[in-house]
Amino acid sequence: MSLQRQPLSIDSVTIEDGFWQRRREVNREQTIEYQYQQLEAAGTLDNFRRASAGEEGDHNGMWFQDSDAYKWIEAASYVLADRDDPELEERVDEAIELIAAAQEDDGYLNTYFALEEPEKRWTNLNMLHELYCAGHLIEGAVAHYRATGKETLLQVAIDFADHIDEIFGEEIDGVPGHQEIELALMKLAEVTDEDRYRDLAQYFVDRRGHTDRFVEEFENIEEIAGYDPDEDGIATDARDVFFEDGEYDGQYAQAHAPLRDQETIEGHAVRAVYYYAGATDVAAATGDDELLDHLDRLWQNMTQKRMYVTGGIGSQHFGERFSEDYDLPNDTSYAETCAAIGSIFWSQRMFEETGEAKYIDLIERQLYNAMLVGVSLDGQQFFYDNVLETDGNKSREGWFECACCPPNVARLLASLERYLYTVDEDGLSINQYVGGTATPTIGETDVTVTQTTEMPWEGTVEVDVDAAEPSPFAVRLRVPEWCTDATVEVNGEPIDVDADAGYVTIERKWDNDRITAEFEQSVEVLEAHPAVEDDFGRVALQRGPLVYCLEEIDNDRPLYQYTVAPDDAFDATLREDLLEGVVTLEGEATAPSMDGWDGKLYRPTAETDDEPVTISAVPYYAWNNRGPGAMRVWLNGA
Amino acid sequence: MSLQRQPLSIDSVTIEDGFWQRRREVNREQTIEYQYQQLEAAGTLDNFRRASAGEEGDHNGMWFQDSDAYKWIEAASYVLADRDDPELEERVDEAIELIAAAQEDDGYLNTYFALEEPEKRWTNLNMLHELYCAGHLIEGAVAHYRATGKETLLQVAIDFADHIDEIFGEEIDGVPGHQEIELALMKLAEVTDEDRYRDLAQYFVDRRGHTDRFVEEFENIEEIAGYDPDEDGIATDARDVFFEDGEYDGQYAQAHAPLRDQETIEGHAVRAVYYYAGATDVAAATGDDELLDHLDRLWQNMTQKRMYVTGGIGSQHFGERFSEDYDLPNDTSYAETCAAIGSIFWSQRMFEETGEAKYIDLIERQLYNAMLVGVSLDGQQFFYDNVLETDGNKSREGWFECACCPPNVARLLASLERYLYTVDEDGLSINQYVGGTATPTIGETDVTVTQTTEMPWEGTVEVDVDAAEPSPFAVRLRVPEWCTDATVEVNGEPIDVDADAGYVTIERKWDNDRITAEFEQSVEVLEAHPAVEDDFGRVALQRGPLVYCLEEIDNDRPLYQYTVAPDDAFDATLREDLLEGVVTLEGEATAPSMDGWDGKLYRPTAETDDEPVTISAVPYYAWNNRGPGAMRVWLNGA
Repeated sequence: MSLQRQPLSIDSVTIEDGFWQRRREVNREQTIEYQYQQLEAAGTLDNFRRASAGEEGDHNGMWFQDSDAYKWIEAASYVLADRDDPELEERVDEAIELIAAAQEDDGYLNTYFALEEPEKRWTNLNMLHELYCAGHLIEGAVAHYRATGKETLLQVAIDFADHIDEIFGEEIDGVPGHQEIELALMKLAEVTDEDRYRDLAQYFVDRRGHTDRFVEEFENIEEIAGYDPDEDGIATDARDVFFEDGEYDGQYAQAHAPLRDQETIEGHAVRAVYYYAGATDVAAATGDDELLDHLDRLWQNMTQKRMYVTGGIGSQHFGERFSEDYDLPNDTSYAETCAAIGSIFWSQRMFEETGEAKYIDLIERQLYNAMLVGVSLDGQQFFYDNVLETDGNKSREGWFECACCPPNVARLLASLERYLYTVDEDGLSINQYVGGTATPTIGETDVTVTQTTEMPWEGTVEVDVDAAEPSPFAVRLRVPEWCTDATVEVNGEPIDVDADAGYVTIERKWDNDRITAEFEQSVEVLEAHPAVEDDFGRVALQRGPLVYCLEEIDNDRPLYQYTVAPDDAFDATLREDLLEGVVTLEGEATAPSMDGWDGKLYRPTAETDDEPVTISAVPYYAWNNRGPGAMRVWLNGA
Repeated sequence: MSLQRQPLSIDSVTIEDGFWQRRREVNREQTIEYQYQQLEAAGTLDNFRRASAGEEGDHNGMWFQDSDAYKWIEAASYVLADRDDPELEERVDEAIELIAAAQEDDGYLNTYFALEEPEKRWTNLNMLHELYCAGHLIEGAVAHYRATGKETLLQVAIDFADHIDEIFGEEIDGVPGHQEIELALMKLAEVTDEDRYRDLAQYFVDRRGHTDRFVEEFENIEEIAGYDPDEDGIATDARDVFFEDGEYDGQYAQAHAPLRDQETIEGHAVRAVYYYAGATDVAAATGDDELLDHLDRLWQNMTQKRMYVTGGIGSQHFGERFSEDYDLPNDTSYAETCAAIGSIFWSQRMFEETGEAKYIDLIERQLYNAMLVGVSLDGQQFFYDNVLETDGNKSREGWFECACCPPNVARLLASLERYLYTVDEDGLSINQYVGGTATPTIGETDVTVTQTTEMPWEGTVEVDVDAAEPSPFAVRLRVPEWCTDATVEVNGEPIDVDADAGYVTIERKWDNDRITAEFEQSVEVLEAHPAVEDDFGRVALQRGPLVYCLEEIDNDRPLYQYTVAPDDAFDATLREDLLEGVVTLEGEATAPSMDGWDGKLYRPTAETDDEPVTISAVPYYAWNNRGPGAMRVWLNGA
């Protein structure tokens, strides 16, 4: 791999942090446990048992249900990399045994096809997600191998990858209907040091938009797969999303054009960001700067025209997809949790190659908002799609028939260590401000870095840098995009900070030194680009990395009746008792006086006075943890 | 009839008016002609031909298609009452001949049943509209008889009414699925002086909400009618609207409770207002003041909580119905043209009994806005449902499968004479300001009243009162609700005006006198009750009786980007060249500066300046006469 900046491994970072530590405990103790129970309850593991026993029919759940097991193994493996947990390790080993037993002699592994249509492997790439499941198998296997050194699942993944490598590009000229295997193969290439997996990833990245395979499948699915798509539930359920006015429209799966000809980010949001994450890996590995620039243009289209203030992406419900520029409805926002997570995967890779702070800024926004909102504080209720406004009919759910999001949150939270630091040849970048200890090796020097911070509630960060022996290197601190004023000191001596530069670079001979940074957290009253009709005349509150919202339970009036002026002052108040401890924003706003309306529905606006009222906002990630109720991110602006 | 105030007959009023005369010419020359062509094109007349020939099957159009013919005859009859038109008269006579020939020996008349299921008469009152069609037959017959003195159609109506009178209350304890016959029977009672039609109307009014017939039909339709409602398209199409959570919910047809127990106006809007119009007739005829008070409370619920600023009613698309209090979406507003017209029928009756100006004020609002928007300036394109805001995907249509609205507009415009004046024992009320001449008899005195006005463009009205011999009586002028300042003079002598009293009453001995009234028309910036979420923070422009809107074609920016402050000044400018001559409102507004947004999607609101811009608004009724485009009634308020 030629990535310029390397993240630290999970076992070289320990998170001890007032905010994230609790979320990770809940993730470990509740979500990952709960997720395992769902694997049994939904028959996901049973699919492997029955497939290995040679049974037929009655596959449980979605045709990509195998991936739920793989993603659980991946999340559990990150936990095992972080700490000893013999019980969890045994449970993972048992699951791996079931999976390995279900693998066929030629390396192929998919319980839907094994049980339901063994003769129809690779006949419906568009819909049936064999390569998607293979990708998650590989990611789970790599995580498990890195965490435990055990090779059973890795060998299963290798055997399947080798089988795929034999078939694709040779027998079949096609790419996955749902991207995922691209970035997985890059991980496999890294851990095995085998170039052919990288080449296969590159084939999948480059071939999309060139091959006619999807069109052929739509036109001749009866011939290719032997079934009638209009009769077959699986094929028809999702089929409509590929068509525009009755014509095949590859945009849904980013297959409407070769990647290098795509000028805007289109289609199914999770597919898009998984794809571009894999493509970034390929661009990095092959030194393809042109592709990297092109990916940055797509990233800019996403962040400058097609993203919610929370970092949520994919605004359109139908097709779970990107819509047009500036089309960002709030009460029907889709903003799938998985899409924000996939965007984090992509941005992290873009940063590792370019070092540009904007990518890390977006990760921070999505970690604290679009991703974290996906799971309840108790770790057992989940949002799949995320609205920014509701009258109260939207709540997290216990599980989903298509259960992609909860395991994605779990594997991200369990691997948060990998998003905090990167090491390059010159030194260390501190990307996310999360308390704890890291032990990078910089050049030849072993260094211990200890972060102490109350982020996101306060903007102060202390970093102790303890080098095994005094050594010259650079330490880079990201100046967050939300920060209006930043001061940085080393051992009490101020450092020049250019807040717009993205990173403050401190080059010196490090020994046993303390960096103290103060990133000012004022309450920002934000507005959206005037082309965003749904936000027009509205404002959103942000403090530090957190986007805020009003919840019905904290406010007397219907939420739409509050108006916030740019100069309204807000008090940031730490409320230890509320929502496991949050800083609320309490402030003045106005609402219309209700005087004189009796018996009237319309009247001259001059007759209405506004009256001062108080509003109380909570962090968006924490909403809907106190029962159902109305919620609103975008408030009326004065 | 015991109505306190009597409208003038069509032939005693001549409309010569800068505004309405042209609309009525178009109605006569284009709409009524076009509507007749549709009767042939859609096979409506052919249904009568084939039924009278004893044919079977292949009924054309909707199961209530007969009513299209009856409503055309009614509109044409109003034209014939106003002027000689031998060609039109002959065409009407021919249609009447077809209808009369299709009547069965026992008086029953309905071509859907005659052709499709002759043995199933009266088996599906809920859905199949036999009584609704009978009502329109009666209305058409009364209008034709009054206009021409010819009795052919009146006799058909009498025979059918007698047949209905024999069956209902005796053989069948039931009421119409779609109200209409109630008010029609009251007209028949008046023209024939037969109380039994009034009694039958009263039965239909009072029995609704008591009889179990609708429930029985839903539960036993197979037994009653011999068909399976889940298989039969006609029965299932509209069936869902009767159910709430799977249970029968009579609200759709106002059958959820007896009228006197209904506290809010519910269900299908056209059904509701037709019903309450008929009930008002019954209350008036029976001197039932309690019922009249109850109807007024329903009217208040409608106007104070469930009505668009245009006077449109029935906001909910599904079920074409009233929704909850204050639920008035703008881009999905239903506001069916027929419902506004039915509301005019109801309000006119409420006024005739009570003399309260509020009813006439609403009629004025609906005539100039909610009704008139239903037809294009060329008389050949129609709105069935009326949005108050669109991004441009909404336009009038040439015709509808369910073609209730265009004929309703036609019959209202053709009978506008009946809405201008009422005579009571004390004198004359001038209700609507429309130029022309009326020749009422007040007491024993023949009077000629001549109105001269440029309404709705200017607020001046001159009324010449010319009594055949000098006589004492009252002339009442309505002071419109929109008028902020009113002056009235008689022969140059000022009269005291209490603008809140509704009417200015001038009692004197009239001879040959001139009343000059000045009703100030300022541009009102209106807002809606704060409980109307969809209008919150928004304002609407009104001048005189006209509600205004912005159309894309007249304004540079996306319409949602304009903000209007309460003190923004507007110039009212007569534009003879535009939309057959309209007063436009030209004024200052603000829109956000687009500076500094490059590459940004969100930023602190303090960074954005507004810039002054000009907007140009046109009357709402005139929108969408220059091709498709965005339109908006409710603008952002500052």
